[in-house]
Amino acid sequence: MPTVDHDERRRRIAEVCVAVIAREGLEAATVRRIAAEVGYGTTIVTHYFADKQQLLLWAYRVLAEEAHDRFQEVVARDPADLVGALLSMTAADERGQRRWRAYVAFWDRAARDTAFAAEQRLRIDQALARIAEVVRARNGPRPDLERVSRLLNAVVQGISVQALVDRESWSREQIAAALAHQVATVLGPPARL
Amino acid sequence: MPTVDHDERRRRIAEVCVAVIAREGLEAATVRRIAAEVGYGTTIVTHYFADKQQLLLWAYRVLAEEAHDRFQEVVARDPADLVGALLSMTAADERGQRRWRAYVAFWDRAARDTAFAAEQRLRIDQALARIAEVVRARNGPRPDLERVSRLLNAVVQGISVQALVDRESWSREQIAAALAHQVATVLGPPARL
Repeated sequence: MPTVDHDERRRRIAEVCVAVIAREGLEAATVRRIAAEVGYGTTIVTHYFADKQQLLLWAYRVLAEEAHDRFQEVVARDPADLVGALLSMTAADERGQRRWRAYVAFWDRAARDTAFAAEQRLRIDQALARIAEVVRARNGPRPDLERVSRLLNAVVQGISVQALVDRESWSREQIAAALAHQVATVLGPPARL
Repeated sequence: MPTVDHDERRRRIAEVCVAVIAREGLEAATVRRIAAEVGYGTTIVTHYFADKQQLLLWAYRVLAEEAHDRFQEVVARDPADLVGALLSMTAADERGQRRWRAYVAFWDRAARDTAFAAEQRLRIDQALARIAEVVRARNGPRPDLERVSRLLNAVVQGISVQALVDRESWSREQIAAALAHQVATVLGPPARL
Protein backbone atom coordinates (compact mmCIF):
# COMPACT_ATOMS: atom_id res chain seq x y z
CA MET A 1 0.00 0.00 0.00
CA PRO A 2 1.38 3.41 -0.90
CA THR A 3 1.78 5.87 1.97
CA VAL A 4 -0.98 8.45 2.10
CA ASP A 5 0.31 12.02 1.88
CA HIS A 6 -2.09 13.75 4.24
CA ASP A 7 -0.70 17.24 3.65
CA GLU A 8 -1.07 16.78 -0.08
CA ARG A 9 -4.67 15.61 0.35
CA ARG A 10 -5.52 18.55 2.60
CA ARG A 11 -3.91 20.91 0.10
CA ARG A 12 -5.85 19.43 -2.83
CA ILE A 13 -9.13 19.58 -0.92
CA ALA A 14 -8.52 23.22 -0.02
CA GLU A 15 -7.54 24.08 -3.61
CA VAL A 16 -10.75 22.62 -4.99
CA CYS A 17 -12.73 24.29 -2.22
CA VAL A 18 -11.31 27.73 -3.08
CA ALA A 19 -12.01 27.18 -6.78
CA VAL A 20 -15.66 26.25 -6.08
CA ILE A 21 -16.10 29.26 -3.75
CA ALA A 22 -14.62 31.66 -6.29
CA ARG A 23 -16.82 30.24 -9.04
CA GLU A 24 -20.10 29.60 -7.26
CA GLY A 25 -19.91 31.05 -3.76
CA LEU A 26 -19.63 29.71 -0.25
CA GLU A 27 -23.00 27.96 -0.27
CA ALA A 28 -21.84 25.65 -3.07
CA ALA A 29 -18.79 24.51 -1.12
CA THR A 30 -20.34 21.58 0.73
CA VAL A 31 -18.26 18.63 1.94
CA ARG A 32 -20.15 16.36 -0.48
CA ARG A 33 -19.53 18.64 -3.44
CA ILE A 34 -15.84 19.16 -2.68
CA ALA A 35 -15.35 15.42 -2.19
CA ALA A 36 -16.94 14.75 -5.59
CA GLU A 37 -14.83 17.40 -7.34
CA VAL A 38 -11.56 16.31 -5.79
CA GLY A 39 -12.38 12.66 -6.47
CA TYR A 40 -12.32 11.45 -2.86
CA GLY A 41 -15.16 9.90 -0.91
CA THR A 42 -16.90 12.12 1.64
CA THR A 43 -15.44 9.88 4.40
CA ILE A 44 -11.93 10.87 3.34
CA VAL A 45 -12.84 14.57 3.37
CA THR A 46 -14.56 14.31 6.76
CA HIS A 47 -11.49 12.48 8.05
CA TYR A 48 -9.63 15.77 7.62
CA PHE A 49 -12.46 18.24 8.16
CA ALA A 50 -15.21 17.46 10.63
CA ASP A 51 -17.69 19.73 8.87
CA LYS A 52 -18.13 22.47 6.28
CA GLN A 53 -17.08 25.15 8.78
CA GLN A 54 -13.70 23.46 9.36
CA LEU A 55 -13.22 22.97 5.64
CA LEU A 56 -13.96 26.61 4.87
CA LEU A 57 -11.70 27.91 7.63
CA TRP A 58 -8.91 25.71 6.28
CA ALA A 59 -9.50 26.98 2.74
CA TYR A 60 -9.32 30.54 4.06
CA ARG A 61 -5.98 29.72 5.67
CA VAL A 62 -4.60 28.18 2.47
CA LEU A 63 -5.67 31.29 0.59
CA ALA A 64 -3.90 33.51 3.13
CA GLU A 65 -0.75 31.39 2.75
CA GLU A 66 -0.89 31.75 -1.02
CA ALA A 67 -1.08 35.54 -0.60
CA HIS A 68 1.77 35.41 1.89
CA ASP A 69 3.97 33.39 -0.51
CA ARG A 70 3.41 35.84 -3.34
CA PHE A 71 4.23 38.76 -1.06
CA GLN A 72 7.42 37.04 0.12
CA GLU A 73 8.54 36.34 -3.46
CA VAL A 74 8.50 40.08 -4.11
CA VAL A 75 10.32 41.15 -0.95
CA ALA A 76 12.87 38.33 -1.34
CA ARG A 77 13.96 40.11 -4.53
CA ASP A 78 13.83 43.58 -2.99
CA PRO A 79 12.84 44.08 0.67
CA ALA A 80 11.94 47.73 -0.04
CA ASP A 81 9.73 47.10 -3.12
CA LEU A 82 6.58 48.38 -1.44
CA VAL A 83 4.58 48.93 -4.62
CA GLY A 84 5.46 45.45 -5.89
CA ALA A 85 4.57 43.90 -2.55
CA LEU A 86 1.21 45.71 -2.39
CA LEU A 87 0.54 44.80 -6.02
CA SER A 88 1.05 41.12 -5.19
CA MET A 89 -1.77 41.43 -2.63
CA THR A 90 -4.33 42.83 -5.08
CA ALA A 91 -6.70 41.32 -7.64
CA ALA A 92 -4.29 42.39 -10.40
CA ASP A 93 -4.15 39.06 -12.21
CA GLU A 94 -6.23 35.92 -12.74
CA ARG A 95 -4.97 34.26 -9.58
CA GLY A 96 -5.45 37.41 -7.53
CA GLN A 97 -9.00 37.77 -8.86
CA ARG A 98 -9.81 34.22 -7.85
CA ARG A 99 -8.38 34.87 -4.42
CA TRP A 100 -10.38 38.09 -3.96
CA ARG A 101 -13.62 36.50 -5.09
CA ALA A 102 -13.10 33.94 -2.35
CA TYR A 103 -12.09 36.66 0.15
CA VAL A 104 -15.32 38.56 -0.43
CA ALA A 105 -17.28 35.34 0.13
CA PHE A 106 -15.38 34.79 3.39
CA TRP A 107 -15.93 38.39 4.50
CA ASP A 108 -19.61 37.95 3.90
CA ARG A 109 -19.51 34.94 6.21
CA ALA A 110 -17.27 36.79 8.70
CA ALA A 111 -19.90 39.51 9.11
CA ARG A 112 -22.15 36.89 10.73
CA ASP A 113 -19.75 34.27 12.10
CA THR A 114 -17.34 34.94 14.98
CA ALA A 115 -14.88 32.19 13.99
CA PHE A 116 -14.51 33.68 10.53
CA ALA A 117 -14.32 37.21 11.94
CA ALA A 118 -11.47 36.12 14.24
CA GLU A 119 -9.69 34.49 11.30
CA GLN A 120 -10.13 37.63 9.20
CA ARG A 121 -8.78 39.85 12.00
CA LEU A 122 -5.75 37.56 12.32
CA ARG A 123 -5.09 37.80 8.57
CA ILE A 124 -5.46 41.58 8.62
CA ASP A 125 -2.96 41.80 11.48
CA GLN A 126 -0.51 39.63 9.57
CA ALA A 127 -0.94 41.71 6.43
CA LEU A 128 -0.37 44.92 8.42
CA ALA A 129 2.81 43.52 9.98
CA ARG A 130 4.12 42.49 6.55
CA ILE A 131 3.33 45.87 5.01
CA ALA A 132 4.91 47.69 7.97
CA GLU A 133 8.11 45.71 7.48
CA VAL A 134 8.40 46.77 3.83
CA VAL A 135 7.56 50.40 4.68
CA ARG A 136 10.36 50.28 7.25
CA ALA A 137 12.75 48.78 4.69
CA ARG A 138 11.80 51.54 2.23
CA ASN A 139 11.65 54.58 4.49
CA GLY A 140 13.17 53.61 7.82
CA PRO A 141 11.41 53.56 11.19
CA ARG A 142 8.68 56.16 11.63
CA PRO A 143 6.12 56.90 14.32
CA ASP A 144 3.13 56.57 11.97
CA LEU A 145 4.09 53.11 10.72
CA GLU A 146 0.88 51.47 11.85
CA ARG A 147 -1.37 54.19 10.48
CA VAL A 148 0.42 54.18 7.12
CA SER A 149 0.21 50.38 6.91
CA ARG A 150 -3.51 50.42 7.71
CA LEU A 151 -4.15 52.97 5.01
CA LEU A 152 -2.14 51.06 2.42
CA ASN A 153 -3.93 47.84 3.31
CA ALA A 154 -7.27 49.62 2.98
CA VAL A 155 -6.27 50.84 -0.49
CA VAL A 156 -5.29 47.29 -1.52
CA GLN A 157 -8.66 45.99 -0.35
CA GLY A 158 -10.72 48.82 -1.83
CA ILE A 159 -9.01 48.58 -5.21
CA SER A 160 -9.33 44.80 -5.32
CA VAL A 161 -13.05 44.66 -4.64
CA GLN A 162 -13.58 47.24 -7.39
CA ALA A 163 -11.30 45.34 -9.77
CA LEU A 164 -13.55 42.30 -9.38
CA VAL A 165 -16.40 44.05 -11.17
CA ASP A 166 -14.52 46.64 -13.22
CA ARG A 167 -11.48 45.20 -14.98
CA GLU A 168 -11.45 48.08 -17.44
CA SER A 169 -10.76 50.68 -14.78
CA TRP A 170 -8.43 48.41 -12.85
CA SER A 171 -6.02 46.61 -15.15
CA ARG A 172 -2.76 45.42 -13.60
CA GLU A 173 -1.05 48.57 -14.91
CA GLN A 174 -3.73 50.86 -13.50
CA ILE A 175 -3.59 49.15 -10.11
CA ALA A 176 0.22 49.43 -10.08
CA ALA A 177 0.00 53.13 -11.01
CA ALA A 178 -2.58 53.85 -8.30
CA LEU A 179 -0.48 52.06 -5.69
CA ALA A 180 2.69 53.85 -6.82
CA HIS A 181 0.88 57.16 -6.55
CA GLN A 182 -0.51 56.34 -3.11
CA VAL A 183 2.90 55.20 -1.82
CA ALA A 184 4.69 58.26 -3.23
CA THR A 185 2.06 60.60 -1.79
CA VAL A 186 2.03 59.07 1.67
CA LEU A 187 5.72 58.21 2.04
CA GLY A 188 7.61 60.29 -0.51
CA PRO A 189 10.62 58.82 -2.28
CA PRO A 190 12.46 55.81 -0.80
CA ALA A 191 14.88 56.86 1.93
CA ARG A 192 18.63 56.28 1.46
CA LEU A 193 19.10 53.90 4.33
CA MET B 1 -61.09 50.58 0.77
CA PRO B 2 -57.99 52.57 1.66
CA THR B 3 -55.67 53.45 -1.20
CA VAL B 4 -52.59 51.23 -1.36
CA ASP B 5 -49.34 53.18 -1.17
CA HIS B 6 -47.17 51.14 -3.52
CA ASP B 7 -44.01 53.16 -2.95
CA GLU B 8 -44.39 52.71 0.79
CA ARG B 9 -44.85 48.96 0.35
CA ARG B 10 -41.80 48.66 -1.88
CA ARG B 11 -39.80 50.69 0.60
CA ARG B 12 -40.86 48.51 3.54
CA ILE B 13 -40.13 45.32 1.63
CA ALA B 14 -36.67 46.59 0.71
CA GLU B 15 -36.00 47.72 4.30
CA VAL B 16 -36.84 44.30 5.70
CA CYS B 17 -34.84 42.67 2.92
CA VAL B 18 -31.71 44.69 3.77
CA ALA B 19 -32.12 43.91 7.48
CA VAL B 20 -32.36 40.17 6.79
CA ILE B 21 -29.33 40.27 4.45
CA ALA B 22 -27.22 42.20 6.97
CA ARG B 23 -28.20 39.77 9.75
CA GLU B 24 -28.25 36.42 7.96
CA GLY B 25 -26.86 36.85 4.48
CA LEU B 26 -28.24 36.86 0.96
CA GLU B 27 -29.37 33.24 1.00
CA ALA B 28 -31.81 33.95 3.81
CA ALA B 29 -33.52 36.75 1.87
CA THR B 30 -36.13 34.66 0.05
CA VAL B 31 -39.39 36.16 -1.17
CA ARG B 32 -41.27 33.90 1.25
CA ARG B 33 -39.15 34.94 4.21
CA ILE B 34 -39.31 38.66 3.42
CA ALA B 35 -43.08 38.44 2.93
CA ALA B 36 -43.42 36.78 6.35
CA GLU B 37 -41.21 39.35 8.08
CA VAL B 38 -42.90 42.35 6.51
CA GLY B 39 -46.33 40.90 7.23
CA TYR B 40 -47.54 40.70 3.62
CA GLY B 41 -48.55 37.59 1.70
CA THR B 42 -46.05 36.30 -0.87
CA THR B 43 -48.51 37.31 -3.61
CA ILE B 44 -48.18 40.95 -2.58
CA VAL B 45 -44.38 40.75 -2.61
CA THR B 46 -44.34 38.98 -5.99
CA HIS B 47 -46.71 41.67 -7.28
CA TYR B 48 -43.80 44.10 -6.89
CA PHE B 49 -40.86 41.77 -7.42
CA ALA B 50 -41.12 38.90 -9.89
CA ASP B 51 -38.44 36.89 -8.13
CA LYS B 52 -35.65 36.99 -5.54
CA GLN B 53 -33.22 38.49 -8.05
CA GLN B 54 -35.50 41.51 -8.63
CA LEU B 55 -36.07 41.91 -4.92
CA LEU B 56 -32.34 41.85 -4.16
CA LEU B 57 -31.49 44.31 -6.94
CA TRP B 58 -34.15 46.64 -5.58
CA ALA B 59 -32.79 46.31 -2.04
CA TYR B 60 -29.31 47.14 -3.38
CA ARG B 61 -30.74 50.27 -4.99
CA VAL B 62 -32.50 51.34 -1.78
CA LEU B 63 -29.23 50.87 0.07
CA ALA B 64 -27.40 53.02 -2.47
CA GLU B 65 -30.05 55.71 -2.10
CA GLU B 66 -29.66 55.66 1.67
CA ALA B 67 -25.91 56.17 1.25
CA HIS B 68 -26.58 58.95 -1.25
CA ASP B 69 -28.95 60.73 1.16
CA ARG B 70 -26.42 60.66 3.98
CA PHE B 71 -23.72 62.00 1.68
CA GLN B 72 -26.00 64.80 0.51
CA GLU B 73 -26.88 65.77 4.08
CA VAL B 74 -23.19 66.45 4.72
CA VAL B 75 -22.49 68.41 1.54
CA ALA B 76 -25.71 70.40 1.94
CA ARG B 77 -24.16 71.81 5.12
CA ASP B 78 -20.72 72.30 3.57
CA PRO B 79 -20.07 71.41 -0.10
CA ALA B 80 -16.31 71.20 0.62
CA ASP B 81 -16.51 68.93 3.70
CA LEU B 82 -14.68 66.06 2.01
CA VAL B 83 -13.77 64.20 5.20
CA GLY B 84 -17.34 64.44 6.49
CA ALA B 85 -18.72 63.27 3.15
CA LEU B 86 -16.33 60.29 3.00
CA LEU B 87 -17.08 59.49 6.64
CA SER B 88 -20.80 59.32 5.82
CA MET B 89 -19.99 56.59 3.28
CA THR B 90 -18.13 54.34 5.73
CA ALA B 91 -19.17 51.74 8.30
CA ALA B 92 -18.56 54.32 11.04
CA ASP B 93 -21.86 53.84 12.87
CA GLU B 94 -24.56 51.24 13.41
CA ARG B 95 -26.42 52.14 10.26
CA GLY B 96 -23.26 52.25 8.19
CA GLN B 97 -22.24 48.84 9.52
CA ARG B 98 -25.58 47.38 8.54
CA ARG B 99 -25.21 48.89 5.08
CA TRP B 100 -21.70 47.52 4.62
CA ARG B 101 -22.66 44.05 5.77
CA ALA B 102 -25.27 44.06 3.04
CA TYR B 103 -22.80 45.56 0.52
CA VAL B 104 -20.33 42.72 1.11
CA ALA B 105 -23.13 40.22 0.56
CA PHE B 106 -24.04 41.96 -2.70
CA TRP B 107 -20.39 42.08 -3.83
CA ASP B 108 -20.15 38.38 -3.22
CA ARG B 109 -23.13 37.92 -5.52
CA ALA B 110 -21.75 40.45 -8.04
CA ALA B 111 -18.59 38.36 -8.43
CA ARG B 112 -20.75 35.67 -10.05
CA ASP B 113 -23.77 37.55 -11.40
CA THR B 114 -23.55 40.02 -14.29
CA ALA B 115 -26.71 41.95 -13.31
CA PHE B 116 -25.30 42.59 -9.85
CA ALA B 117 -21.87 43.40 -11.27
CA ALA B 118 -23.46 46.00 -13.57
CA GLU B 119 -25.38 47.47 -10.63
CA GLN B 120 -22.21 47.63 -8.54
CA ARG B 121 -20.28 49.35 -11.34
CA LEU B 122 -23.08 51.90 -11.66
CA ARG B 123 -22.98 52.60 -7.92
CA ILE B 124 -19.18 52.93 -7.97
CA ASP B 125 -19.44 55.43 -10.84
CA GLN B 126 -22.02 57.45 -8.93
CA ALA B 127 -19.88 57.42 -5.81
CA LEU B 128 -16.84 58.56 -7.81
CA ALA B 129 -18.81 61.42 -9.36
CA ARG B 130 -20.03 62.53 -5.94
CA ILE B 131 -16.58 62.38 -4.41
CA ALA B 132 -15.08 64.26 -7.38
CA GLU B 133 -17.62 67.05 -6.89
CA VAL B 134 -16.61 67.53 -3.25
CA VAL B 135 -12.90 67.38 -4.12
CA ARG B 136 -13.53 70.11 -6.68
CA ALA B 137 -15.43 72.19 -4.13
CA ARG B 138 -12.55 71.77 -1.68
CA ASN B 139 -9.53 72.18 -3.95
CA GLY B 140 -10.77 73.47 -7.28
CA PRO B 141 -10.52 71.71 -10.65
CA ARG B 142 -7.45 69.49 -11.08
CA PRO B 143 -6.28 67.09 -13.77
CA ASP B 144 -6.04 64.10 -11.41
CA LEU B 145 -9.61 64.44 -10.15
CA GLU B 146 -10.65 60.96 -11.26
CA ARG B 147 -7.56 59.26 -9.89
CA VAL B 148 -7.88 61.03 -6.56
CA SER B 149 -11.57 60.13 -6.31
CA ARG B 150 -10.86 56.48 -7.10
CA LEU B 151 -8.22 56.32 -4.41
CA LEU B 152 -10.47 57.97 -1.82
CA ASN B 153 -13.31 55.61 -2.68
CA ALA B 154 -10.94 52.66 -2.36
CA VAL B 155 -9.91 53.88 1.11
CA VAL B 156 -13.59 54.20 2.13
CA GLN B 157 -14.25 50.63 0.99
CA GLY B 158 -11.08 49.14 2.46
CA ILE B 159 -11.63 50.78 5.85
CA SER B 160 -15.28 49.78 5.96
CA VAL B 161 -14.74 46.08 5.30
CA GLN B 162 -12.10 46.05 8.03
CA ALA B 163 -14.38 47.95 10.41
CA LEU B 164 -16.96 45.18 10.04
CA VAL B 165 -14.69 42.71 11.82
CA ASP B 166 -12.49 45.04 13.86
CA ARG B 167 -14.44 47.78 15.62
CA GLU B 168 -11.61 48.36 18.08
CA SER B 169 -9.19 49.50 15.40
CA TRP B 170 -11.87 51.37 13.46
CA SER B 171 -14.07 53.41 15.76
CA ARG B 172 -15.85 56.40 14.23
CA GLU B 173 -13.05 58.65 15.52
CA GLN B 174 -10.31 56.44 14.10
CA ILE B 175 -12.04 56.24 10.73
CA ALA B 176 -12.45 60.04 10.68
CA ALA B 177 -8.77 60.50 11.60
CA ALA B 178 -7.61 58.08 8.89
CA LEU B 179 -9.77 59.81 6.27
CA ALA B 180 -8.58 63.26 7.39
CA HIS B 181 -5.00 62.10 7.11
CA GLN B 182 -5.55 60.57 3.67
CA VAL B 183 -7.31 63.70 2.39
CA ALA B 184 -4.63 66.02 3.77
CA THR B 185 -1.84 63.86 2.33
CA VAL B 186 -3.35 63.54 -1.12
CA LEU B 187 -4.87 67.01 -1.50
CA GLY B 188 -3.17 69.23 1.04
CA PRO B 189 -5.14 71.96 2.81
CA PRO B 190 -8.45 73.21 1.32
CA ALA B 191 -7.88 75.77 -1.41
CA ARG B 192 -9.12 79.33 -0.95
CA LEU B 193 -11.60 79.38 -3.78
